Amino acid sequence: MLPELEKVLSEDEVRQIVRDEVQQAFANDPAKRKMRLVASKGSLDWAYPPLILSTAAAAGGMDTAVFFTFYGLNIIHKDGPKKLRVSPVGNPAMPMPVPMADLFTSLPGMKPFATSMMKSMFKKRGVVTIPELIEVALESDVRLIACQMTMEVFGFEEKDFIDGVEFGGAAAFVSEARQGHITLFI
Amino acid sequence: MLPELEKVLSEDEVRQIVRDEVQQAFANDPAKRKMRLVASKGSLDWAYPPLILSTAAAAGGMDTAVFFTFYGLNIIHKDGPKKLRVSPVGNPAMPMPVPMADLFTSLPGMKPFATSMMKSMFKKRGVVTIPELIEVALESDVRLIACQMTMEVFGFEEKDFIDGVEFGGAAAFVSEARQGHITLFI
Amino acid sequence: MLPELEKVLSEDEVRQIVRDEVQQAFANDPAKRKMRLVASKGSLDWAYPPLILSTAAAAGGMDTAVFFTFYGLNIIHKDGPKKLRVSPVGNPAMPMPVPMADLFTSLPGMKPFATSMMKSMFKKRGVVTIPELIEVALESDVRLIACQMTMEVFGFEEKDFIDGVEFGGAAAFVSEARQGHITLFI
Repeated sequence: MLPELEKVLSEDEVRQIVRDEVQQAFANDPAKRKMRLVASKGSLDWAYPPLILSTAAAAGGMDTAVFFTFYGLNIIHKDGPKKLRVSPVGNPAMPMPVPMADLFTSLPGMKPFATSMMKSMFKKRGVVTIPELIEVALESDVRLIACQMTMEVFGFEEKDFIDGVEFGGAAAFVSEARQGHITLFI
Repeated sequence: MLPELEKVLSEDEVRQIVRDEVQQAFANDPAKRKMRLVASKGSLDWAYPPLILSTAAAAGGMDTAVFFTFYGLNIIHKDGPKKLRVSPVGNPAMPMPVPMADLFTSLPGMKPFATSMMKSMFKKRGVVTIPELIEVALESDVRLIACQMTMEVFGFEEKDFIDGVEFGGAAAFVSEARQGHITLFI
Repeated sequence: MLPELEKVLSEDEVRQIVRDEVQQAFANDPAKRKMRLVASKGSLDWAYPPLILSTAAAAGGMDTAVFFTFYGLNIIHKDGPKKLRVSPVGNPAMPMPVPMADLFTSLPGMKPFATSMMKSMFKKRGVVTIPELIEVALESDVRLIACQMTMEVFGFEEKDFIDGVEFGGAAAFVSEARQGHITLFI
């Protein structure tokens, strides 16, 4: 009974084992399962991409966090649903029922009009609302992190944000983001 | 003739083989050859970066795809060349011949003026047009994917897009993007 | 004295060594130490994120570069401090002392007002200025690279940029970015 002797490996056999293990390790690269997003914009339309992408990733089993900074803090503010608006001004790609020069889209009343048009477009097509998406995000363990520096600059306090939000800085974001493949600044 | 016996490896030799193989594997990490971009904006200026970066990557042999969502759908719309405009409003960095307050850039006629100025700036410098860049992208196997959800929200159909465009959702984008190092939201 | 004989390794032992080495190699994946940013916007507010994120990464020992393209060239232009403005128009998330329709924010004088308000918000909270951040970036070996193609389109020359700026193209950016985990288009 000397089974060990039968297992003595040649260099070729060792290299084959190494290649198999390495290939498997790359297939399971933990960076593939980590997504870190920055949500920097605070209008209704730009609130969708970070929430849709992060909930899609969480549904696929990924470790996901969204870092809300600058105007993006609006999205997770307790008054978010009221704060999130769409402005047609300066966005020549915003679909409008009829073509309008920016002067007309600048008139008082156009911003609420654009906001409610966008909301109804999403509703008509069965797309969930931002508060619903935030709920889905929290339920599926997407971490929602408010940027402490811009909170201070804009005069926000921790109590201004919805329950479940965490607080962190740019250095912490970088330290996490560098571990994952998907990093997007939205 | 017992050559195998001469190849019996010590632990140190095994570790050296492993380190060599692992180093080579990291140099060839497949994530380095994969780029996934999101093109979310629909104005003439912001149509350039996703197309310039993706064609540059494809020229370097990378597996490349651009996911067109929200206003970015304009770029690959059959009417794209007419739809892509530049608005100087709300963009204080837009180079204008003379400084203008936003009120003046809001006047009817300023949007077409800014668009043609930008087009002539690019033309004068020998930069290709957007339709030319799209052609280069398709010829160099850059995959152009239209976001199905925002197509529905904006009321677009598959036949509205140029030939060669594929159709997919956010989950498919995430599933591909997590395999690659370069992921940009433009 | 036949110490080598005692070290003959079984397949299981070899696999264990491989797994240890591979796990350590993934922990030290060089892609975790590389960040490549694109700074594409030229207003005061959007000048902050690329400089804050790149200096935070450099402070953590990462190999970091920012590629300034399109309107982002303003940030590293010699006249940058004068060129960087904030426009409240078309940004419904811009915090204003009182709610204003876009028509009023379009009036001559509102752009300088918004710019100085933003500057004082940052100053009051002890956030460094853009010229200070650029100095920190250069001192901590963040590479600042101006996009040659958009320099030509906008009619900029090398001498128009601050000392320490390098010059490069999109292909060079892609070639570097694909080596790192963090890639953001700001």
